[in-house]
Parts: sequence; structure tokens; C-alpha cells
Amino acid sequence: ITLTTDFGRDSHYVAAMKGVMLSVNPAATIVDISHGITPQNIAQGAFVLGEAARWFPRDSIHVAVIDPGVGTNRRIVYARVGDQQYICPDNGLLSYVCRNRRPEKSIEVTNRSLFLTEVSNTFHGRDIMAPVAARLSIGVPPEQLGAPLESLKIFEWPRPERQNNSLVGRILCADSFGNLISNVRREDLPSDIEPAYFFVETAQHQFDGIVKTYLESPPGTPVALFGSSGLLELAIVQGNAALQLQIPVGDSFGVRW
Amino acid sequence: ITLTTDFGRDSHYVAAMKGVMLSVNPAATIVDISHGITPQNIAQGAFVLGEAARWFPRDSIHVAVIDPGVGTNRRIVYARVGDQQYICPDNGLLSYVCRNRRPEKSIEVTNRSLFLTEVSNTFHGRDIMAPVAARLSIGVPPEQLGAPLESLKIFEWPRPERQNNSLVGRILCADSFGNLISNVRREDLPSDIEPAYFFVETAQHQFDGIVKTYLESPPGTPVALFGSSGLLELAIVQGNAALQLQIPVGDSFGVRW
Amino acid sequence: ITLTTDFGRDSHYVAAMKGVMLSVNPAATIVDISHGITPQNIAQGAFVLGEAARWFPRDSIHVAVIDPGVGTNRRIVYARVGDQQYICPDNGLLSYVCRNRRPEKSIEVTNRSLFLTEVSNTFHGRDIMAPVAARLSIGVPPEQLGAPLESLKIFEWPRPERQNNSLVGRILCADSFGNLISNVRREDLPSDIEPAYFFVETAQHQFDGIVKTYLESPPGTPVALFGSSGLLELAIVQGNAALQLQIPVGDSFGVRW
Repeated sequence: ITLTTDFGRDSHYVAAMKGVMLSVNPAATIVDISHGITPQNIAQGAFVLGEAARWFPRDSIHVAVIDPGVGTNRRIVYARVGDQQYICPDNGLLSYVCRNRRPEKSIEVTNRSLFLTEVSNTFHGRDIMAPVAARLSIGVPPEQLGAPLESLKIFEWPRPERQNNSLVGRILCADSFGNLISNVRREDLPSDIEPAYFFVETAQHQFDGIVKTYLESPPGTPVALFGSSGLLELAIVQGNAALQLQIPVGDSFGVRW
Repeated sequence: ITLTTDFGRDSHYVAAMKGVMLSVNPAATIVDISHGITPQNIAQGAFVLGEAARWFPRDSIHVAVIDPGVGTNRRIVYARVGDQQYICPDNGLLSYVCRNRRPEKSIEVTNRSLFLTEVSNTFHGRDIMAPVAARLSIGVPPEQLGAPLESLKIFEWPRPERQNNSLVGRILCADSFGNLISNVRREDLPSDIEPAYFFVETAQHQFDGIVKTYLESPPGTPVALFGSSGLLELAIVQGNAALQLQIPVGDSFGVRW
Repeated sequence: ITLTTDFGRDSHYVAAMKGVMLSVNPAATIVDISHGITPQNIAQGAFVLGEAARWFPRDSIHVAVIDPGVGTNRRIVYARVGDQQYICPDNGLLSYVCRNRRPEKSIEVTNRSLFLTEVSNTFHGRDIMAPVAARLSIGVPPEQLGAPLESLKIFEWPRPERQNNSLVGRILCADSFGNLISNVRREDLPSDIEPAYFFVETAQHQFDGIVKTYLESPPGTPVALFGSSGLLELAIVQGNAALQLQIPVGDSFGVRW
């Protein structure tokens, strides 16, 4: 079982969820993906969840609680996408996971007998999602959670806009090194052109070509390269692009060839 | 076994404690409650420990190391409170857990044969509490830790002051959303009055009534509601009350009806 | 298996490594040492890794990924030092662990059949070190990782400079309490002099003697004491030396007797 939330790492809310899960399944392996999602930022949560989840063993259960609508009538859903399982509010958190595939199974989580006895108005992560995930992990079949759903709330994941010999990408987030991760994938660019012949540029900065590693160019050079997620990153060799280039998350940039 | 400390999340002190515990019991399940307690803030540690611990399985062992008196003659204690077990310095850390009940069992931890061979002057979490907790987890009975204690050091947990048709509460802490959690419980307020008819106010700010969810009011509205711990919280809808209202932890506020 | 990285605690990179390890060995116990190493600070990573690793059970596998040279021809190594095992880039990360002993075994990690099928240019922690560590944990012998190495890249760990009746030490890091941890060990000082007769001083500040606990002196006093790692620490009683004394990491100080 993994956890992705906006609770902050040292919150007792996270520990409460773990306590509830271990009360149901003392043998559960619980892994934190992130508790540092910006409060209520569903797009960031969707990206981090999707990037991490795909590395986990088949049938892992990923619980994501970025839940600005808690206590309203937004649904809580179970989804099976590929060989992974997800439990989260139905608010778009699965948009990245589902950006190029449909869920194999979608269920609205409504079976109160699987919840904590008392359900608060403000913390469904602890009272509903944690016990349901733990029960799934001890073999309760997903069909017992509730009725199948026709569709989930999924927003269109922003894709780069391709023109004739250029493309407009967008910065999705910055990592702890200050590398700016974008939505441009290798396959978005023509495959018959050498990496070094691409020009990457923002309104203020130019990046020469697309390099293979951070260390091909001298320290301080702005470089673009495909990072470990297969996404184009803007970086500064041995520097911090987010701080030094002042390019905010959400900004667009161009790639020409 | 859970851990609550003021070491900071990325401190090697935390890892050292886990290494010691796994050396004694390689099968231990170790869960972090928080390592972000403000250094030496016993009241905050007591609150976070108590809020998290009650969700854990029966017989869990909660180790709390906020220990400004390490190396002096302050005692280290084992306590059983309800169905949970605690190991911590005897400095008030159990004040919240014991705010409305007495420990079933209290023992002074003195049996050096259960400690690390070398005990430092400055890190009893690693040298005493970690190995003792791990030994408890493999079946060493609490009675072997030392002699029973008459009483623990418990400070009076601040309760709201009730007057005729009003009450004075106090802010205990802020969570990662900036919600200000107070010491006012549902049962502190008269049960025969509709939530919407309470007035909540600080020196500078007014909150209309007590709402049921964060989303009943428009974004930006200051609201009061009972949060997931059953405690009254002051919040701003889709905002950050701690930042925007500048109400410091420890401040008092009024509820009128 | 432990993890020490500069990825930041809430990075999905850490979770990806855990997912890869659990895919190979679902029963692995994975412990975070620190993900808060300053990006690319090999000396800090070496110190934190070494201080934490020695408390872990025999044969634990410590994976450290502070890897500015990823994607270049720097080697990835396996080392057995004492009763612990290490996997990391060969960039000096084992300098503290090896400061007073030689590895029992050193192997260059080259056997691609133990890696992920696709190896990226930028994230060998996930693609090489995580799966190799997990395979070791299920019994793959180290000899299968690659060929033995003559020597590892180890930089000389800075030792205090001893003069006639004085010594020059250096601040290695600050902990979460603001205590400044130095490279001076008990055995670096003459053993026939009472602790209270040492004078500790920086360019700007004086510390009287070497005390045994933080609480021997009144609040606000600058004190020096041997901390839980056996290293001399500069601290302020109930204060934060790093903030209040403004002594930067890397600075030197004197001990006289």
C-alpha cells in the first residue's frame, strides 16, 4: 500500500492512516510516495502518483488523499489501471495515470461496513480510504466496495503542441535539484534528427541541443535532457535551474528543429 | 513500534534508533509518527503522540523522544494507557494521553541489561528507549524493565474555560493546511444549540457559526468547524488561516451562544 | 536495506527506488537514513551514512545515491566494510566508513542481468542500485555483481591537527537542534586531563571546559561536550548554536589544555 497526500510529512494525520491500516492488516507493507504535495494541488498529486506508482509490484494499492472536496458529495473511487490499484477521491487524481489508457475497472466506494465505524466530515483518508485499502490488501475483492462506475473524473493531461518544425512544451514541476521537468516526451520529437540539433528556448533563456547527461557541458551551462521519467528536463549543470533561471512551474517553452 | 521525536526527519539519529531496534527485532514494524516536533516542545509532542497513538493496533509500543533533560536524573518510564504502550522520558509527554484517564501500569525503566552496552549521556533514545522497545516487541514482559511507579509527571492539559453562555478556547497547533486546531471539543459546548448559532471570535477576526465541512462557505471565508480529531478548528475556506489570520499558536479565542 | 540520498524526502524518485526493490523482494525491510543530504554534497552524505550504518544489523545493505557523476563513466561499487554492505557510486561516499579501516571486499557492479531492463542516463539509483540491492537481499552473492576492485575512491577524512598543548578541529555539520558536530573525538585529546580543564574557542566565541550533559550550565551558555556519536559538539544550553553563534559548517576551532 502506498500513500500520496498533501498532509505534510510530519503530520499526525499520516500516522493515523497508517495506524488504521495496520489495525486491519498488521502485515501490510506501507510505503510513503509523498506527503509534500502542495495543499489541494490535484495536478501535482496526479503527476507524482503516476510517476511513482508504475515502479511498484503488480497489484499494489495506491491511496491518494488530496481532497479539497472532503465532506461534500464528491465520490471516493477504486480503480484498476494496468496492473496497479488506486483508491482516491474522484477529483482528477487519476488523470496522469489514465492519460493514455482507460481503467480496467472503476468502482464507487460506498460499502460502509468496510469503513471505520465513525466517519468524520473532514478526514475520509483515515476513516474510509485507509481501512478500505487495508481490507483489499487482505483479500476483500474490489467488487465488495460498491457498484461499478461508468466513468471517472479525468481532466485532459496537457500535451505539447506540435507545429511544423517546432513544439511548445510546459513545465510540470521542479525536483529537489531544481531541474524543471516538462511534459515533452522523446516520442513527441521527430526521431530522425540528432539530439544535438534541437534548440530549446524559453522567453529568457536558450539551451543548446539536447544532451545525454548532466556532465557533458561545463558547470553553469543551461542544458536540456531527457530525464529519468523520459520527460524533457531543463537544468543547469551543477546548478539549480528553478532558482537561477526563475522559470515558474506552468510556464511554456519551445523546441525547434 | 512508533517513533515521535524532535530530531528532524532527515537526521541520522532517527535512523540510528531504527537500526538498534531492527538489530534486536528484525521483524519489527516501525512507523514514524513525527520527527518534526519543535525542538524540546513537550506539549506539542504530547498532543501529536496522543492524537496519532489512538489509531494504532492494540499493544503497539510508542516511543517518544523529546528529551531536554537527557543526561540528568529525569526518569525514563514505561506506561500502559488503555490498550497502548508508551516509552518516554518522564517529563510530561504523556499528559495528553492521560488527560482523562490514568495509566493501567507505570514502570521506571532501569534494567541496564536491556540497554545498549554503552549508554551515552546525550542520546537515551538510541541507547535505552530503542532497545527496550524492541525487547518488549519480542515478548520481554514490562515488569522486567524496572520497578512500578506511584505516579508519572503529568501536567494539567489546558481545558477551555466555560462561562455562562460562552467559553474561552486555546489554539494548540496548526496543521499543514494552516488550520488552527484548538482544545475545544464538541462536548464542551451545549448540545441543544444548532451549530450555526455559535459565534466564534478572536481579538481580530470573526467566524460565523460552526460549519460541517470546509466547502459550505465561499473561498476566503473564515470558518470554524470540528475537525477530524473532534477538536474545533479555525480555518479559511481554500486558504491558510495560520498565514492569513496571523493567529499564533497559544492564543485564546471565544465561543458565544 | 537502507537509503541515503539527496533527492528530498517527498520526491517520487525515492518511492520509485522502493517500488523497484519491493518488486524484486516484496519482503524487504527498507529504512530511510536521510534524503536531506545537500544536493551533491558527498562529504555530508559520507558522514551521515557512516554514523547511521553502524547501528544496523549485520549484513544490512546500505544504498547511497549522491551521484553528481551519473551517466559518466564513474563506477558503481559494492563494498563490504566490517559487517555491513554498501552499494553506491565510487565517488568518495565511503570515505567516512573507511576512515580507519579497509573494505573486506570491493566489487565493481557491472552485471547488467541484475539491473532493470532499461537503464536511464540520469537515475542509476532506480535502474541499477535498487534492483542490485534487492537481489543481494534475496541471496544473490556479491561475487555475481562484477569483478573485484583493487581500490575504491576514498578521500582523506579531515582529522584534527594536534599541536603541543592544543588542537584544531573542524565543524562537520549541524543537527536539528543547531548543535555543531565536529571531527574531534575523545581519543584526540589527552586522557589525563579533567574535562573541565579544556578551553574550547572559535574566532568569536569561548566555551568553558567540556561538560557532560547539556543541562550542567544555565540556559544560554555556550558549552562543548562529547555528543552521542562520540564527537565534540559546540552547543548552547536550551538554544541553537548554529543560529545564535553563526559559526558556519566547515569552520575550524581550537581546543587548548
